[in-house]
Formats: sequence, structure tokens, C-alpha cells
Amino acid sequence: MKITKAVVTVAGKGQRALPLQTLIDRDGAEKSVLGILIEEVQRAGVEEIGLVVRSGDEGALTAVAGNHAAHLRFIPQAEPSGYGHALLCARDFVGDAPFLHLVGDHIYISRGESGCAQQLVQVAEREACTVSAVQATREHLLPYFGAVGGRPLPNRPHLYRVERVMEKPTPTEAEQQLIVPGLRAGHYLCFFGMHVLTAGIMEILERQLAAAASPQQVTLSHALEELAQQEQVLALEKQDWRYDLGARYGLMMAQMALSLHGRDRDLVLTRLLELLAAGG
Amino acid sequence: MKITKAVVTVAGKGQRALPLQTLIDRDGAEKSVLGILIEEVQRAGVEEIGLVVRSGDEGALTAVAGNHAAHLRFIPQAEPSGYGHALLCARDFVGDAPFLHLVGDHIYISRGESGCAQQLVQVAEREACTVSAVQATREHLLPYFGAVGGRPLPNRPHLYRVERVMEKPTPTEAEQQLIVPGLRAGHYLCFFGMHVLTAGIMEILERQLAAAASPQQVTLSHALEELAQQEQVLALEKQDWRYDLGARYGLMMAQMALSLHGRDRDLVLTRLLELLAAGG
Repeated sequence: MKITKAVVTVAGKGQRALPLQTLIDRDGAEKSVLGILIEEVQRAGVEEIGLVVRSGDEGALTAVAGNHAAHLRFIPQAEPSGYGHALLCARDFVGDAPFLHLVGDHIYISRGESGCAQQLVQVAEREACTVSAVQATREHLLPYFGAVGGRPLPNRPHLYRVERVMEKPTPTEAEQQLIVPGLRAGHYLCFFGMHVLTAGIMEILERQLAAAASPQQVTLSHALEELAQQEQVLALEKQDWRYDLGARYGLMMAQMALSLHGRDRDLVLTRLLELLAAGG
Repeated sequence: MKITKAVVTVAGKGQRALPLQTLIDRDGAEKSVLGILIEEVQRAGVEEIGLVVRSGDEGALTAVAGNHAAHLRFIPQAEPSGYGHALLCARDFVGDAPFLHLVGDHIYISRGESGCAQQLVQVAEREACTVSAVQATREHLLPYFGAVGGRPLPNRPHLYRVERVMEKPTPTEAEQQLIVPGLRAGHYLCFFGMHVLTAGIMEILERQLAAAASPQQVTLSHALEELAQQEQVLALEKQDWRYDLGARYGLMMAQMALSLHGRDRDLVLTRLLELLAAGG
């Protein structure tokens, strides 16, 4: 299995402006959030990027994409119709091929040498199936994430066979249905914000959207839950970090993380200590 | 002397986008930088605000000013012609009256109960003359600021009579001409980014601009240097904090300072410690 396409969704309400923001990347260069995401995808060896955007946002996104704009294919979503619908908009773009999917309001920071998406794509190509990146996450953060239940794959470190997928489960639901053997107590495998998906996901999304009372009800979690009944779906547990830019103080914490994991670590630590010492 | 007008300059190259940014203020509310500045001015009892903008920016600024838009008078600067020229654009707006002046790319955080501009306006009204807010600043930061030399006023804590004003002096120039008795060694009184100015400054700016080879050469520092020869100019030493949003990591450090001095202090400190503990 070879991944050549990526779908990045940036059409969400309250998320549309985030890819336009400027951050200083780990290498010390000022980039738009969109530019940082494009580089994350390219580091994974994926060159064709479909960007699901709210109709009319193409100009602003092209402007901040800079030199990367030539690699982008804009896929307009005419009106806000939820996450599942946004993904389905990319159906013609991906065709029958598996694809990398990133959400456009996260920043990913890898702990090691290779990029977060790069590791995910390598695992998905080797296993030749859908793989969702996940992270062991404390129970009190369940309201913010989709989460999976399943079992560790024998002799495959950090890989789990996914049996259940739930969107923002309650602690009770999680305890009853998402317990994963081997995980620390009170922790669940929550989505990291990137997936490699087979084209099967599009058929399921189309069916679920046709049956739903409102398109907003159909999320990737619902479709993945069904996909996991049809074919093998794996979860790759990441040791890396992801930052939700749309969260309260999200942009600040993402910038802080980029700087503390990057070239300007000493400069920013010094400024931070000065700030704290100033008496806060 | 009564201050009823304020001039905020947001036309500078590389600074125009800063007032449009969103920050979470000390009270926990999301506001545009422009909104935070308008509230700083209003807290000082000043209601009429002239905003010197690059022609064409009025719409975007109105949008982020929200409910405050009605208090704004836009003063367009047709093309980038420097800081002194930007201030002079507000000449008709201020007329013969003294006015509060803030730069539009700073955020001010007061240590005490009253606002930074509020304290400055109170002192200027009492002393009935031009007063520049300054801060004792270490020598290595001289390249970023205008700085003043002068002597402490007897029996007037934190007030200095200004004798010299220099824009971004070298350490040698500062040592020779800007030594201020009573200040810690290696420290100079650098501008804090807010002033109360008498209308005399406009005449001087006009004359200096007419004589200058390029308008970019004329800064507020040059005009203040001349004003200090004509009439009393004071400097008020602030114990508060100002953050230059246009500096490297400026937005992040300003947001960090607002949060650490505000309602969300515990939340942000916790997130920060988690980030540092994650192994950075």
C-alpha cells in the first residue's frame, strides 16, 4: 500500500481562521499554520494535498501557503455541514486510494527524528490498512476527543486492533466499552488528529450522511466504528505531542511547545523565567 | 489641564496586522488587540480616540473594534512615511489640546489597581505638561527603544525632568548623554510606549518633516528632544509591564503575561508546567 494523497480539513466553524495564523516553527522560521501542516504532510512523502475549505476561503489560504500553494487542491464545502460531510467532499480527490488525513486546527510535534505523519504513513503502508494515530489520554479529557477501544497487536509495539470507536464518550461509556488492556488506569486511547484511511471510509460516510437527521451528527468516529466492523482498523499509539489550536490558549501553548522543542528553546525559557520572576 | 483625546498609531509597516489579533485579556475574555487598547484608553477617562491607520485598513479595524467602533475616528496615512509623519496626521484631530498617545503594537499590564494610561494621564493633568512613560531598562535592550536622560524631580517620586531624548542610542551614546542619577548602573530610562503630549509636538514634527531628507528619519524621539528645549517635558517611571507584540515571540509572551496576571493564572501555570514536564 502506498499513500500519495492527503486530505486536510480546514472548513470547520471556529477553525477556519486558524490555518491563517502565523507561528514560529521549531526551525525558527515564521510560517503560517497551513504552511507548517503542509510541511508535516510533505515530510511523510505525500505530495498531493486536498484542502477541504469553506467556499470563499481559497484566496486567503493561497496567500499564506506561499511557495506551497502549487501543491494544494482546494475542495470547497459550500456551507458548514459537519466533519463527516467535509471529509466526504474529498471523495473525488482521493478516488479509490488510501489517504492521509490531518485536521487543520492541530499542530503536531514529534519526539524523535521522523515526523508524526511520516511515522503514521510508514506503519499504514506496512500494515496495508486504516491506521488512526492515538494517544493515551487521561479520563478528564474525554469530552474533547474521539476515543477507541481494542486490544494490543502481539509483537507490534504501540499498535492496537480497533474494536470500538466513540466520539467524546462519557467516563462511564469509556469505562464500559473502551478499556484497553495494558494501558495505565484512567487512561484511554484518544485520537491524535491524524489518520490513514482506506477509501472504504467514504462509502460509509455517504451512507451515514444519507441516513442522518442532520449532517452534523456524522463524524469520522461514527464512520470508523463501522469501518472497523468491515475491515482491519489499527490504532498507533504516539509518544509525540499534538496541540489543538482552537482550544482556549491553544495558539499560545502551541507556540510555546514549538519554541521549547526548537531552536529558540533557551531564548524562550529565559524570557519565560523573566516573566515569572517579574512577580506575576 | 484635561486630556480628552487619544491618538493611537497602527499604520506602521509590520505592525498593521497586530491590532487585528485576538488575545485573551486578564479578565478571561477574548478581545482584539485593538479592543484591549481602546479599553486601556477608556480606563484613563479618555473617550475620543483617533486611530492613525494605513488607508484601506479601516474596515478590518472596525470589524475587530466591535462595540467600541463608535468611539473611533480613523485618520488615514496614505502611504508608509514613518512614525513622526503618522503622528502628524492626527494634527487636525487633536487641534490645540494635549493628548494621550499610545503605540498600537504594545500591550500594557499595570501592577496595581489603576491602568497604565490612567496613571500617566493623572500625572500629566496634575503637572500640566508633556509626560512620557518610561521604564528602567537594561543597556542591552537600548537598540529597541527611544531613551531619555534627565534628573529626578525633587519630592516627586518616579518623575524626571527630561533633558535629552535619543532614538535607539548606542551604549556609548547612552553612557555619555543619558545617565540618570539614582538609576541602577547599566540601566536607562527607555520609552514605555505611551505619552501625554502637548500640541507643541505637532509644530515641531511639521518643521522637522519639512527639513528631513526622508520622512522615515523623523521619530517621536527627535521631536520630543526639541520640545524638551522649549517647554517642560517630564518622564514618569513605570513599575508596570509593556509587551511589544511585533517582537519575536511578542504575541506569545504578551498572551502569557496577560494570563499570568489575570483570571486564568492557575490554569495557564498548570498547562505550562505540564508542557515543561513533558520533556521539552
